Amino acid sequence: MYAVAVRRDGSKPEVLEKPRPEPGPGEALVRTLRVGIDGTDHEVIEGAHGGYPDGEDHLVLGHEAVGVVEDPNGTRFQEGDVVVPTVRREPPGGTNEYFERGEPDMAPDGEYVERGIVGAHGFMSEYFTSPADCLVSLPRELADLGFLAEPISISEKAFEHAFASRSAFEWEPDSALVLGNGSLGLLTLAMLDGSEQFERLYCLGRRDRPDPSIDITEELGATYVDSRETPVSAFASTHEPVDFVYEATGYAKHAFETIDALAPNGVGALLGVPTDWQFEVDGGRLHREFVLHNKALVGSVNSHVGHFRAAIDRLDSLPDAFVDDLVTGVYGLDELDAAFATDDSTIKTAVEFGSI
Amino acid sequence: MYAVAVRRDGSKPEVLEKPRPEPGPGEALVRTLRVGIDGTDHEVIEGAHGGYPDGEDHLVLGHEAVGVVEDPNGTRFQEGDVVVPTVRREPPGGTNEYFERGEPDMAPDGEYVERGIVGAHGFMSEYFTSPADCLVSLPRELADLGFLAEPISISEKAFEHAFASRSAFEWEPDSALVLGNGSLGLLTLAMLDGSEQFERLYCLGRRDRPDPSIDITEELGATYVDSRETPVSAFASTHEPVDFVYEATGYAKHAFETIDALAPNGVGALLGVPTDWQFEVDGGRLHREFVLHNKALVGSVNSHVGHFRAAIDRLDSLPDAFVDDLVTGVYGLDELDAAFATDDSTIKTAVEFGSI
Repeated sequence: MYAVAVRRDGSKPEVLEKPRPEPGPGEALVRTLRVGIDGTDHEVIEGAHGGYPDGEDHLVLGHEAVGVVEDPNGTRFQEGDVVVPTVRREPPGGTNEYFERGEPDMAPDGEYVERGIVGAHGFMSEYFTSPADCLVSLPRELADLGFLAEPISISEKAFEHAFASRSAFEWEPDSALVLGNGSLGLLTLAMLDGSEQFERLYCLGRRDRPDPSIDITEELGATYVDSRETPVSAFASTHEPVDFVYEATGYAKHAFETIDALAPNGVGALLGVPTDWQFEVDGGRLHREFVLHNKALVGSVNSHVGHFRAAIDRLDSLPDAFVDDLVTGVYGLDELDAAFATDDSTIKTAVEFGSI
Repeated sequence: MYAVAVRRDGSKPEVLEKPRPEPGPGEALVRTLRVGIDGTDHEVIEGAHGGYPDGEDHLVLGHEAVGVVEDPNGTRFQEGDVVVPTVRREPPGGTNEYFERGEPDMAPDGEYVERGIVGAHGFMSEYFTSPADCLVSLPRELADLGFLAEPISISEKAFEHAFASRSAFEWEPDSALVLGNGSLGLLTLAMLDGSEQFERLYCLGRRDRPDPSIDITEELGATYVDSRETPVSAFASTHEPVDFVYEATGYAKHAFETIDALAPNGVGALLGVPTDWQFEVDGGRLHREFVLHNKALVGSVNSHVGHFRAAIDRLDSLPDAFVDDLVTGVYGLDELDAAFATDDSTIKTAVEFGSI
C-alpha cells in the first residue's frame, strides 16, 4: 500500500510503498478515507517536534484520520463502519494507569506514543490498524469531514479543562479571544460561536487583507485583531478584557500576556507548543493580577475518546458554509505539494485515499 | 469603646477611642472576643496594601475576628451566639451581582470594600456591627480559636478553586508543597495533612534552626525546605515534582517557578500578593510545560460564607497540639507591640477584647 512519510534524511513528505498492516488481537483494519494536515505535521516534518518509531528510518505522517472498517477482526465494529482513530497509544514498555482509565491525554512524556507524531507511524496510508478502543464511530454522512474530529477534540478537551477551573463559582463568560487564525484557531472560533454562550468573539492573527482566514473570522461575527497593531498585552485596553482566551499560536509570550488580556475571574487555555525563549516579564504585576482577580491558566494537550465523541457531535453542528471555507483543498497522493502548502490561501487541507 | 487603628500620619497601630457602633437594619451588634493578626495587617500598616475609608484619617485594623452577638437587632441570631464575620462588604456605590449571588470573593477591584483592609474599618475594636448575612455561627467551644476561621477560609477557597481545575480527569494527588511558613502556610500545611489525601508534604521557608515554624512543619510530618539552599525552580530535581503547590509568600518569581515544581497534571494555587518586579523567565519552556503536561495555575483571593462554614468544620478537626504551637500569643490592648511583633518566635497572634 501507499503511505505518506517523512524520512530521517528527507526534508519533505514523500510517498512510500509499505506492506498492508495485519490487525492484531483487539484491533480492526481500517481503509483510510482522508487524513487532515495541521501545524503539528509541519513541525514533525521540520524535525521541531515528535520523533521516529524505534529502529525506523521513516515516520508515516498523519494523526487526523477518518476511514472505513475493512476487517472488524472480531471487534465490536461492522465492516463498512466509518471511524475516527484517537492519537495516543501505549508506549513500547506496555500500558499504564492513564491508558487503563481511558485518559491517555493525561499521560506524561514517555508514557505514550502518538501516531504520526512521536514514536509510532501515523494514519496517512491506504490502510491502518488500531485497537477498537481507540476508534470512534462517525455517522456516514460526516465521513468526508471526519478528519476534522481530531482537531475539534483538542478544543473539546481544552474547553472542558478550562471551564472546569471556573466551576467553583458562577461564571457567565460572554467574551472570548482566540490567539491564532490557523485552522485550529478558526475551528475553535466556530465552536465558541456555535455554543451561543459568547456574545463577543475576537481572533488574533498577523495577516493582511484580503485574507481568507480574516474573511472566515468576520463571517463568524468575530472581530479580527492584527497582532502587529495590537499585541495581546494591549488587547484589554484597545478592545476589552475577555472572559476566555484560547492560545493556539505557540508564541511563548502569549501565555504571559494572556493574564493581562483576561477579565477578572477569566481563564486562559494554553495549547500552542513554543520553542525555548527567555524574555523579561512584569512578573510582580502578573502574579498579583492572577491572585487579586482570581484568574487561571490551564495547559491542555491531546484528547481522549470522550472528547472525540463530543467533537463528532460538534462537527455535525458546524455551519456548512464555514466548513466549506475552512477546508481549502483535499488532494490525492500525486498532489502532496499542494496538500502540504503553507501559503496564506491554504487553511485546512487533507490527503484523500479513497471514498465510502 | 477602644479600637486599634493605624492613622494616615502614623506608622504603627495605636489605641483610639471611638463611639460604639449602632446596628442598622439587618445588622447585628457583636461584642468582640479576639482578632487575629496576619501579614496583610502588616502590609496595611506599612501602607503597601489596602486603603482608608473615604474621608477618614484612620483605619481600624482587623479582618480575622470572632465575637458574641450582643444585640441581634431582629436578625436570625440570638444574644450570646458566637460568630465570625466575613471580610468583604458592598462598596459605597451599593450592591452588585457578586454580592447578590453570595460570591463577594469574586468581585473585581472597586466592587467591594474589605473590613480592616481597604475602604472600611475592621473588627479590632470592642464592638462591631455587621449584616447578619456576613456572620457565620461558631460552636461556643471554638470561640477562643474563632479568629483562625478567616485564614482557614482563604485556603478553603483556594483548595476549592484549584481542585476544581483538576476535576475534568481522575486526579489523585499525593504530594504538596506549601510556599511560605508563616501562619497561613502552616495552617494550610495542617489542613493538607488532615485531609489524609497527601502522603508527602513539603513547606518552604528561609529560617535557621532552631525555629518554631520548622518545628511545627516537622511535627506535621512535612519536610522543611530552605529556599536559600533549594529555590523553588530546583525543587522538583532536589525533592520531587509535586501535584499541588500553594503559594503564600507573595514572592513574584514563585508564580513562575511553580510551573517547574509541579508534576504533570498538577496545579498551583496562587495567594500571595507581590509588589512590582520585572525579571527574566524561561518563557518558552514554561509555556511548553504548561501545555504538554496539562498544568494549571489558579489565583485565589478572599472567601465567601460557604468557605467560612467549611473553615469552621476544619478548625474543629485541627490537632490541639498544632494550634497550641501555632498561636504564639494572645494579647491585651496594653500589649500591642507584642501582638504586632514580627520576630522569628512570633507565628500567630491575636488581640483579645473580652471573653464569653
